[in-house]
Amino acid sequence: MIDKVIAHIDTQKEKNVDRLKEFIRIPSISTDAQRKGDTRRAGEWVLNLLKGCGIEAKLIETGGHPAVFGDSGAVDGKPTVLVYGHYDVQPTGDESLWKSPPFEPTVKDGIMYARGSADDKGQVFTHLLAAEGWKKAVGKLPIRLKFLIEGEEEISSPNLAPLIKEHRSALACDYIALSDTSKWDDSTPGITYGTRGLVYKEIIVTGPKQNLHSGSYGGSLDNPGNALARIIASLRDNDNRVTIPGFYDDVVPISDAERSALKQLTFDEKAYQEVMGVSVLTGEKGYSTMERRSMRPTLDVNGMFGGFMAEGAMTIIPAKMSAKVSMRLVPNQDAEKVSKAFEKACQAAAPPGVKLEFLTHGAADAYMAPLDSPAMRAASKAMESAWGKKPVFMREGGTLPILPMFKKVLGAESIMMGFCAPDCGMHGPNEFFGLNDLHRGTKTVAHFLQNMADAK
Amino acid sequence: MIDKVIAHIDTQKEKNVDRLKEFIRIPSISTDAQRKGDTRRAGEWVLNLLKGCGIEAKLIETGGHPAVFGDSGAVDGKPTVLVYGHYDVQPTGDESLWKSPPFEPTVKDGIMYARGSADDKGQVFTHLLAAEGWKKAVGKLPIRLKFLIEGEEEISSPNLAPLIKEHRSALACDYIALSDTSKWDDSTPGITYGTRGLVYKEIIVTGPKQNLHSGSYGGSLDNPGNALARIIASLRDNDNRVTIPGFYDDVVPISDAERSALKQLTFDEKAYQEVMGVSVLTGEKGYSTMERRSMRPTLDVNGMFGGFMAEGAMTIIPAKMSAKVSMRLVPNQDAEKVSKAFEKACQAAAPPGVKLEFLTHGAADAYMAPLDSPAMRAASKAMESAWGKKPVFMREGGTLPILPMFKKVLGAESIMMGFCAPDCGMHGPNEFFGLNDLHRGTKTVAHFLQNMADAK
Repeated sequence: MIDKVIAHIDTQKEKNVDRLKEFIRIPSISTDAQRKGDTRRAGEWVLNLLKGCGIEAKLIETGGHPAVFGDSGAVDGKPTVLVYGHYDVQPTGDESLWKSPPFEPTVKDGIMYARGSADDKGQVFTHLLAAEGWKKAVGKLPIRLKFLIEGEEEISSPNLAPLIKEHRSALACDYIALSDTSKWDDSTPGITYGTRGLVYKEIIVTGPKQNLHSGSYGGSLDNPGNALARIIASLRDNDNRVTIPGFYDDVVPISDAERSALKQLTFDEKAYQEVMGVSVLTGEKGYSTMERRSMRPTLDVNGMFGGFMAEGAMTIIPAKMSAKVSMRLVPNQDAEKVSKAFEKACQAAAPPGVKLEFLTHGAADAYMAPLDSPAMRAASKAMESAWGKKPVFMREGGTLPILPMFKKVLGAESIMMGFCAPDCGMHGPNEFFGLNDLHRGTKTVAHFLQNMADAK
Repeated sequence: MIDKVIAHIDTQKEKNVDRLKEFIRIPSISTDAQRKGDTRRAGEWVLNLLKGCGIEAKLIETGGHPAVFGDSGAVDGKPTVLVYGHYDVQPTGDESLWKSPPFEPTVKDGIMYARGSADDKGQVFTHLLAAEGWKKAVGKLPIRLKFLIEGEEEISSPNLAPLIKEHRSALACDYIALSDTSKWDDSTPGITYGTRGLVYKEIIVTGPKQNLHSGSYGGSLDNPGNALARIIASLRDNDNRVTIPGFYDDVVPISDAERSALKQLTFDEKAYQEVMGVSVLTGEKGYSTMERRSMRPTLDVNGMFGGFMAEGAMTIIPAKMSAKVSMRLVPNQDAEKVSKAFEKACQAAAPPGVKLEFLTHGAADAYMAPLDSPAMRAASKAMESAWGKKPVFMREGGTLPILPMFKKVLGAESIMMGFCAPDCGMHGPNEFFGLNDLHRGTKTVAHFLQNMADAK
């Protein structure tokens, strides 16, 4: 049956490019209040596609943009997979940096340039097309498919957690499938099986009740600026290890299997260094760059501010100084626990004359999917069928708070199949998605559904 | 003869208050381009007073506001004293904080409230009145007096150094006398014999060529924010001693005489702490608060900035992070040498993946006048005569770059006689000067001139 589906998808190749353009032309910028109507329209576009191939679907209203929910109905003895994705997109940023208009998809040398082409409209489209392909070519889906395509991912999904809890029985599934990550390199597909967690803190250090003259008072009180520097410096040692007591206690060590898999990959450190524009790669002692960037936890300053920040000189002891500091976490670190340990370590490093306050701007656990699940095998085999090459299994340095939430509320593991390029310009100008990747991606998902139906 | 002068000054007491009001009503805010005419007018007011009592005087034009120069002429066998002061004033700041209009001098309970009442119009006026008193009561001055009253002190005297160099022979003198510091307490006059120097640096730490996503890149490069914290933290140890190699090499230790003089003073640490609004007084180990605030060098952060500084969270590794750091110096630290040692220490503490740049926003040496000079004795005796109490000899935590410059260019030591209250609101709202202090100050200077004439 899968052959029929693939044949059908092949015949639709050109037409589907035009349909994706139509989807992308809707400027569904979720953070832009002026685009509220457009954002909803993109959700309706997804809704209509699902309905159009006979999948029951509806909008679920939230306090913000609605989510699209779809359900193809039970298939006896077969598993249920929930497809997660988002139809909203990032703002365009500085439009002068775009070589073609961000919402007018422009194809050049087989690459489609547009906002949302990769993140996530183009990749969501592969799942929609695969489902449609099965319905049109065979008349039914080989497993039960559900869809949850939200409109608030780019604004941190403020309404998603309550939505999932409220609709947990409708969303019940064996696995979640999503495509919001990338392939490994041009010809090699990628399955991301781990993401890092995040704890984002703001430290506010206060000292004197107002800015003081550094001549008249300097030397007789603790300076919040010096204190903040001391606190932050105390959180990492010279080997770039985090010194917060207990920080590494729950970290799952990198397995031998992962290390040897990594060693078989070619990773161009020089190119990576050039992308960043740094003179040297550095990081936690005892780990490779590949390990440091996605498999080990970090502690980074995101910003610091306070006191005299204008041009020239003003001789003050600042009353207040702040820093934003975030930590990327790995399995099985607990975000809440790390957040508390961070505050305690800061307090311990603070001199006696200052007070500390903390704000928490984010706390999400890391996620790691088991590599030996039937769904992971199904995805891997599907990629091999569609790409003619085995996928690379990767861990991602960024954070997808939705994954540990799915695991917790629905009890289901997530399978991340990545089709776009690693440097596809997500969130930047000239975002792109290869038409070949759209096609290979669609075929991958079609195979995945078959493989899930066959899975034991 | 001094009795005649004092008697004359006493008869003019009321009239002189009105004259000071006239001087103060001229809003000579040197930093305000709109007040350029007013600032010049204040200089002319001083000029006219000098001329009015028969002292030759003129304006010396500069690129900015003019300086008033006066010369009473040689007195055989007697020394020459150059009176330094300034006729410009600070901006008013938030006028809603003033209890009476800043440029309408308001007397309440014997205290005159107005911008410039203490800093420095009222205190300059004591020198002008004492010279006038001698001229009117006796017909001549007992020593040669020169005047250099500038109009750019509150904007860091940008034209003063070249002016002094150019006019070094006209300005030639044995001592400089100035009143731009404070008395010790309400009933006790003060002579400030030392000021701290200043080196003001800006450190700019750069890493990646642009802000990077902290998830995708965090862990694999040196973060300029963490680097800056480490650098600044490295500059002081836990005893609040500066760790820059060589920093203390040239520091003149606090003498036993100074320490025992300090011990005889009552200093209300609790009140000082309340002014600052801190829970505890801290500072360099092994020194008292009095010593730390004016006799020991310091290293303070004045401001830090860079990366994400708005509300909420943005997960970036900043491309650039900066800090303003200033050091107060004491005799005989060399500002240039300290500036270089600072840069070297920062470089040594920087991790390999960042680059440092430095800006220097100020470099001035400390100043310390000998306590056993004839002029110091003359000033001390004059204060005792006018106040009925010996003065307290003090060192000031702030910086007067003009003092080491006078020493270097004119070869003369400075005598700082302070008449205003230590909390007189210089640079803040509700600045004030006691009318009693105006009167005692004027008599002090009159005695000082006599004592200088008598000095061996």
